[in-house]
Amino acid sequence: MDPHGLLPARPPIGPQPPERSDAARNRARLLDAAQRIVDCEGIAGVTMDGLAAEAGVGKGTVFRRFGSRAGVFAALLDDVEREFQARFLSGPPPLGPGADPVERLVAFGRARIEVLARQAPLMRAAERPVEERFEVPARVVVEVHIATLLRQSGVELDVPVIAFELLAVLEAPLLLPEADLTPAKIIRLGDGWERLVRALLR
Amino acid sequence: MDPHGLLPARPPIGPQPPERSDAARNRARLLDAAQRIVDCEGIAGVTMDGLAAEAGVGKGTVFRRFGSRAGVFAALLDDVEREFQARFLSGPPPLGPGADPVERLVAFGRARIEVLARQAPLMRAAERPVEERFEVPARVVVEVHIATLLRQSGVELDVPVIAFELLAVLEAPLLLPEADLTPAKIIRLGDGWERLVRALLR
Repeated sequence: MDPHGLLPARPPIGPQPPERSDAARNRARLLDAAQRIVDCEGIAGVTMDGLAAEAGVGKGTVFRRFGSRAGVFAALLDDVEREFQARFLSGPPPLGPGADPVERLVAFGRARIEVLARQAPLMRAAERPVEERFEVPARVVVEVHIATLLRQSGVELDVPVIAFELLAVLEAPLLLPEADLTPAKIIRLGDGWERLVRALLR
Repeated sequence: MDPHGLLPARPPIGPQPPERSDAARNRARLLDAAQRIVDCEGIAGVTMDGLAAEAGVGKGTVFRRFGSRAGVFAALLDDVEREFQARFLSGPPPLGPGADPVERLVAFGRARIEVLARQAPLMRAAERPVEERFEVPARVVVEVHIATLLRQSGVELDVPVIAFELLAVLEAPLLLPEADLTPAKIIRLGDGWERLVRALLR
């Protein structure tokens, strides 16, 4: 967390349009402010006025930057996605490189389910249709990651098809009604994922 | 097929609001006409005027009944879904009752993928968001069916979670770009489903 909005933006992972650094700082400051409001008051607490006040910028800046509340939530989600990508692409094992591919796949699914469950209210508020919730490149990055680990496992299978199916399982928690996403249910979903992966790659 | 629109409507499966029989006949005649147009000219060939002419009813009747083109497609999909339900609930094995639960589960996924792939253009045209493409009771019927077969297999597992995951895999073909749903790809998706089911229930 960055309670004073003074840290620079996280370096973006993957291709991104270049941003002037003052614009990037502005964006980071606004998103930090939005995250603080979400943490304290929930999603309902985020208004364009309140966000401008919290970040110490004009309301016009907030609108130019995000367009709408849904745009703020979409930008927050992009940040969450980038952070998650950093964890599985270059973070510590077993999620990051260095562990056995099957263990990495198990860890990946568990982490993904947790991130999705935690972000589900934000995803709903971002008002993206399900098809677009994992846009290129986010969806592609995840699919490539799963396919790579499947290949590394050395088990003979139709990698694109199985990767596609496993990706579907990981998107499923999003379709769960919000009330169902209890911590106990999240653990059971993770256990279910692990069972699936270990059975497939036995 | 019913090229002259003279057969009575299929008996509805599952709870349905009662329909006067002339209304039901009208609906069946309209849907048969719509299906004929789709078969000959594709989805783009369906217009409210053309449908009225093909069914030999007034245009007002078509609008009152379906509201819009998307409504026509949604009604066609409901019919497809009811027909599919009849096949797995009471049709011949291995899809219907009488076969081993694992074989039924394998057959179910293969049949579901085929139906989904064939209906994908219709589903897109029906403009239902993904979340609503399998509305209660259709989605619930499928989930209960999968859960029942999992229980019957006698393998010890978290049935609701695994049923939920398997359902996600079967919804995935819908998310495939249309161009990707070749017959060869559909077979590979079916093989992938079979591998998943047999691995889980070994």
